[in-house]
Amino acid sequence: MAVEGKRVDVEKLTNFSAKVLEKLDVPPEDAMVTARMLVASDLRGVDSHGVAHLKPFYVKWIQTGLINVKPDIKIFSQAPATAVMDGDQGLGFVVGYRAMMEAIHRAEITGAGFVAVRNSTHFGAGAYYAMMALSRDMIGISLSQGGRGIVAPGSRGKGVGSNLISIAVPAKKEAPFVLDMATGVVAGGKLELARRNGTPIPEGWAVDMDGNPVTDATKVTGGTGGILPLGGTPQLGVYKGFGLTVAVDILCSTLSRGLTVPERESGPSVQGKANHFFGALCIDSFMPTDEFKKRMDDMIKAHHGLPKAPGVDRIYLAGEVEQETEKHRRQGIPLHPKVIASLQEVAKELNIEYNL
Amino acid sequence: MAVEGKRVDVEKLTNFSAKVLEKLDVPPEDAMVTARMLVASDLRGVDSHGVAHLKPFYVKWIQTGLINVKPDIKIFSQAPATAVMDGDQGLGFVVGYRAMMEAIHRAEITGAGFVAVRNSTHFGAGAYYAMMALSRDMIGISLSQGGRGIVAPGSRGKGVGSNLISIAVPAKKEAPFVLDMATGVVAGGKLELARRNGTPIPEGWAVDMDGNPVTDATKVTGGTGGILPLGGTPQLGVYKGFGLTVAVDILCSTLSRGLTVPERESGPSVQGKANHFFGALCIDSFMPTDEFKKRMDDMIKAHHGLPKAPGVDRIYLAGEVEQETEKHRRQGIPLHPKVIASLQEVAKELNIEYNL
Repeated sequence: MAVEGKRVDVEKLTNFSAKVLEKLDVPPEDAMVTARMLVASDLRGVDSHGVAHLKPFYVKWIQTGLINVKPDIKIFSQAPATAVMDGDQGLGFVVGYRAMMEAIHRAEITGAGFVAVRNSTHFGAGAYYAMMALSRDMIGISLSQGGRGIVAPGSRGKGVGSNLISIAVPAKKEAPFVLDMATGVVAGGKLELARRNGTPIPEGWAVDMDGNPVTDATKVTGGTGGILPLGGTPQLGVYKGFGLTVAVDILCSTLSRGLTVPERESGPSVQGKANHFFGALCIDSFMPTDEFKKRMDDMIKAHHGLPKAPGVDRIYLAGEVEQETEKHRRQGIPLHPKVIASLQEVAKELNIEYNL
Repeated sequence: MAVEGKRVDVEKLTNFSAKVLEKLDVPPEDAMVTARMLVASDLRGVDSHGVAHLKPFYVKWIQTGLINVKPDIKIFSQAPATAVMDGDQGLGFVVGYRAMMEAIHRAEITGAGFVAVRNSTHFGAGAYYAMMALSRDMIGISLSQGGRGIVAPGSRGKGVGSNLISIAVPAKKEAPFVLDMATGVVAGGKLELARRNGTPIPEGWAVDMDGNPVTDATKVTGGTGGILPLGGTPQLGVYKGFGLTVAVDILCSTLSRGLTVPERESGPSVQGKANHFFGALCIDSFMPTDEFKKRMDDMIKAHHGLPKAPGVDRIYLAGEVEQETEKHRRQGIPLHPKVIASLQEVAKELNIEYNL
């Protein structure tokens, strides 16, 4: 977690982030979509994917020409339930938002909708797209290539993606189930946080270039070493984590005419590039939605009611901690002083009023 | 892996297994579907899900009335891409086969097909169903509840399912990608093998009733202790493995009107019961199939070409080891002496000629 810094107003932070992007010629609607998603991550406590990335990722990539602020996004479809999208190097948030809407639209018609997306860029936290399905009474699925941060079993050095899997399912009174995970044993953002905060990382998260375990996150930067896939060792299931990594890349990249992570060259020219895959399943095409949501509540309560280990008060399902964090943070998002400094810098650089 | 015992002819083993089931009033076609899938597991080296289970699982469950050999399988559908199936307690293989065919059929029409299945029983290895999509030029997905073998983070004792995820994707010259994993750190069948062979298990696979790590697999039987979810500890990603476990159960059970693992009572009456979820994505509705398969070959080669760690000859993708095993075993499947003994016993009990 971040050092608790100044609490910033949610709407002000959203409007500020949108203004930054508009100043870089992002159309207002696209800037607002992006700003809302960045702030949604901070709201849910996923500090590693929020406004901390605004300057070092999106502003930089727009300025260096990697991100196309006025993309010509194209949709190709050969069947009612499926489509392929070319994101034309647009902001990942904008491309992802449109692709997920397309999947939802198709699920409204056939019961299921799937969209594979090539030529997109870093889209932030995957949960937001999967969660777009919730208010439409659908199950949402969002997959993405992550950066080339993972060491494949049997290889040395970064070679495959810390790819993303997010699944969101609505409930009635309980919090929606929202799984949001990277296929690495830990998300790259967590190492970034450790580097920012100067804290050590646990053994088992990452190895250096020669495959030795490290506890200093700074030894996993600059193209050497990498994060282990979920599982870590063969006996503890690393081939499962690796298999999930490859499966996600196939759906995002092979199926969309993009390049998978190991097919891409490394280096700055591909930094931030990504392919995605979105899916929506319409609950009403399986059973009445209200009955399903009650069933979700029952399922969640059954998990809460499992016998607890000594010292444990509560069993948490995916998304519950994030929803509780969001309730607190609606009153104001605590930003790390370094993040505040980066927002002040970008305001100065782009000649925008800093009013947070 | 099993102790290498006598090699048994593939066709003879299939016909023998089918005859056993027929003798128990399973219709000939259903018996053959089941026998082929059991033997397919042994062929692929997945000894934990093959004919070793014939007597202790399927024969026993038919004899005790848990499995309905003449099920009235019903399909309900409200939308072109989706369906719900009630398996009427039929053999999981028979129910699963029909449900996956239904998903494939729907994918032929809309590009994607998904079928949630309730009231089924143990369906063996999940890979077989996902692989049914391969010859139809589709991507296959097969999910299932596993037994109540997993300890949820924060709980004590078995409470959630060691649920199954299988994804199969066709390639051109390379082996198809076939992920087949349980969401536990290790499949229950591996503990069964360790118990059968009397070998110790690695620390990190399982805990006893009080949450202490064990290396003796016999301490995880009889309702005490359990297998850890993939990840093992919170820092090493157990909430990812747990999240995948719950997500699979939602799709299989909550969406099909079945009960999730923690909602079920434990004990013999539910042993072998299961809900499933099957999916098929038609490749041709995303891009020309031949181009896709070539792209799969390129993706696979890119993984093979990653820089190798010292002492490593080859990087294996999901399904490659199993395909190599199958090539060898086509000449004869080595069965463990205890498995042969169990087949001889069942032959004697049912008055069938043992000719393997």
